[in-house]
Amino acid sequence: MIILGIDPGTATTGYGVIKIPEDILGRKFEYGIELIGYGNIFTDKEKPMPDRLWKLSRELDTLIKKYQPDQIAVEMLFFGANLKTAIAVGQARGIVMMSAAKHRISITEYAGLSVKLMVAGSGRADKLQVHDGVRKFLGVGGRKRKKLKTNWVGGHLDDATDALAIAICHVLKMVGK
Amino acid sequence: MIILGIDPGTATTGYGVIKIPEDILGRKFEYGIELIGYGNIFTDKEKPMPDRLWKLSRELDTLIKKYQPDQIAVEMLFFGANLKTAIAVGQARGIVMMSAAKHRISITEYAGLSVKLMVAGSGRADKLQVHDGVRKFLGVGGRKRKKLKTNWVGGHLDDATDALAIAICHVLKMVGK
Repeated sequence: MIILGIDPGTATTGYGVIKIPEDILGRKFEYGIELIGYGNIFTDKEKPMPDRLWKLSRELDTLIKKYQPDQIAVEMLFFGANLKTAIAVGQARGIVMMSAAKHRISITEYAGLSVKLMVAGSGRADKLQVHDGVRKFLGVGGRKRKKLKTNWVGGHLDDATDALAIAICHVLKMVGK
Repeated sequence: MIILGIDPGTATTGYGVIKIPEDILGRKFEYGIELIGYGNIFTDKEKPMPDRLWKLSRELDTLIKKYQPDQIAVEMLFFGANLKTAIAVGQARGIVMMSAAKHRISITEYAGLSVKLMVAGSGRADKLQVHDGVRKFLGVGGRKRKKLKTNWVGGHLDDATDALAIAICHVLKMVGK
C-alpha cells in the first residue's frame, strides 16, 4: 500500500511517499515502512496566485500518476495562524483535496500536533526532532543511512520532512498505535 | 466582451454572466450591460469536502466552456469572517482561481464593500439594495422587467445576485466609474 503525505502551502508544498506491506494491519508493526520518494512543489512568488494554484494542481496530478498512492494524508490547518495565512493555506489545501477526489483517492487530515506526537513523541517537537523521528521510522537513520539525504532542498529541514511525517502518522493511526 | 462574476462558497457558489459592447471603454457608459445568465453551483453538504471541491471544479469548467468569458471577477474574502469560515471559503476560492488560470482567463478580486458601493451606492447596502442595483444596471427593473426573475433559487436573494453585482462592479471599474 502506497501512502502520499502532503504538507500544503502556496509557495512550497512538501510531499513524501512511503510504502507499507499490504498485511500491515494484521501484523506486529516493526519498521515495515519503505521510503519511496519525497520532494517539494515550488511555485513562483512573482506569479499571480491563480497561476500558482494551477501549477500546484498540475504537479499534484503528475505526482499521483507517478506514485499511484492508495491513500493520501494531509496536514490540517494550524489554527494559530492568522487570517491571511489561513486563506492562503486554505486555497492550496483546496487544490490538494480536489486533486485527491479527482483521482478517487481517500484523503485524511491530521493536526500538526498529532503528527509530531506520533512521529517524534511530543506535540511540541521541533523540526529536527520530527526529522529524526522520520529517519527512525523509515529505517534510514544512523549507520543504516540509505536514501534520505541530510542536504534537503535548500539545505534546511523543509516541508518534505513534514510531508513524510504526515504519511507516517497516517500509517501509525491505521495500525492503531 | 463577456464577464463572469463569481461569489465563491463551499455549499453555494453564485455566478453571473454579463456582456458589454467591445467599445465600452471609449464610450459614455449608459446601460450597456446585457444579462447573459446567472445561477448557482450547489454541492452536497453530506459529501466529503474533497468531493465537493472536485464538483465545484468540474462545474466551473462547464460554465467557462459554455459562456467563454473574457474576464472573471471574484469577491475577495470578507476579513471579518472567523478562521473556520476563512479556511472553507479560501478552499473554494482556490478552486475558482485555479479554474481561471487553467483556461487562461484573467481574474480580478473585489472587496464586498467595494462591490456594494459601486452597485448599490453604499458599502453598507443590504441584500435587497444590491439586488435593486443589479436590476437597475441590467435594465431589467421596473416596467422593463425581462429576464431576471424575482423568484431566485430557493426563493430568496441569493449568491447569484452577488455574483452579478461583482461582474457589474468589474465593468464599472474598467470604465473608470
